[in-house]
Amino acid sequence: MTTLVIGANGQIGRQFCELAEAAGVPIRAMVRREEQHAWFEERGIATVVADLEGDFRHAFAGCDQVLFTAGSGPHTGPDKTLLIDLYAATRAVDLASELGLARFVMVSALRAEDPQAAPEKLRPYMAAKFAADAYLRGAGVPYLILKPGRLTDAPATCRVATSREEAGGENTVSRANVAHALLHLVQARALVDREFHLLDGERAIPEALA
Amino acid sequence: MTTLVIGANGQIGRQFCELAEAAGVPIRAMVRREEQHAWFEERGIATVVADLEGDFRHAFAGCDQVLFTAGSGPHTGPDKTLLIDLYAATRAVDLASELGLARFVMVSALRAEDPQAAPEKLRPYMAAKFAADAYLRGAGVPYLILKPGRLTDAPATCRVATSREEAGGENTVSRANVAHALLHLVQARALVDREFHLLDGERAIPEALA
Repeated sequence: MTTLVIGANGQIGRQFCELAEAAGVPIRAMVRREEQHAWFEERGIATVVADLEGDFRHAFAGCDQVLFTAGSGPHTGPDKTLLIDLYAATRAVDLASELGLARFVMVSALRAEDPQAAPEKLRPYMAAKFAADAYLRGAGVPYLILKPGRLTDAPATCRVATSREEAGGENTVSRANVAHALLHLVQARALVDREFHLLDGERAIPEALA
Repeated sequence: MTTLVIGANGQIGRQFCELAEAAGVPIRAMVRREEQHAWFEERGIATVVADLEGDFRHAFAGCDQVLFTAGSGPHTGPDKTLLIDLYAATRAVDLASELGLARFVMVSALRAEDPQAAPEKLRPYMAAKFAADAYLRGAGVPYLILKPGRLTDAPATCRVATSREEAGGENTVSRANVAHALLHLVQARALVDREFHLLDGERAIPEALA
């Protein structure tokens, strides 16, 4: 019951991996370069080196679930958004489907539901996430899609909301809370084909994401 | 039985519109700006002004089929590739689905089937086309996907091939031949849920795309 973490070296990815390791949840962190190994090794986290723009099929061996939290991010070039956030995601979904994985957990974005409503500079990124989510929904792999609001570096509160109304109009969520939410979702194996918004709020994670 | 031509002002779009008008095939050319009207008006081609990055629902009124040949092209910025080639395509597909259109004819690209195998600088564009095609296949709208090879400005021969082997190893096709192929496909109403490669070759279009 090992979860392959694609995008493990990202800001949310690292926090998630630390939490999973501490909680004894079996994971394998996929990293792009050998040099990225060290950070994970120091923490006793299993890694596999694979390139999302190359062949990464070997990374799936022995894993029954994928957590996709890779992202070139909204501030890199849109060419990488196309190649990583969109195309690498579709390839990971295809591999999960072909290999019969139990579930694919996608970290998306709240604004991905309606890219046109996003601020102009974020629209290309949100369009990529929109299409990647649609691809996952249609692939036949059991899935979860988590859609965080605007990410912050605030510390974890482990208290969240799943709608803007519930969040008192705020649209932010800390990466730390996203990592905690993912730790819950990765273990909540009965949850499939569901999508959740995620914002900082007042509810305990297992209650909000049930 | 009017075909809405999205991307009418593009290089393939204009050639297609002239052919359709000459053949008496009812079309409506969707153009972005009022100034683009004149070229079509001079030729007696009906137009509708609508913006693919805005609301273009009104453009569909009275049309029963869509031809999507809009493209920011592989040489514009990848932000526009995300917004036009990918996201506007998905929105057009959603509208076609919602309005119950008879068919959606997509102009894709041969390389879109395997973006990783494309030359590096084309990969982001091909990733967008890959995802747009996948979105169309999953939308429940009857579709056709035409995948031309590398486009040239050679004159029409009206002779094509549907595989590289058949084309003697060549991977090019003239925009003029693509326009002629589209004229055939738009009228071949019985063809649905099919995909064709298109290269310059030796066969008559109705025989090759049957």
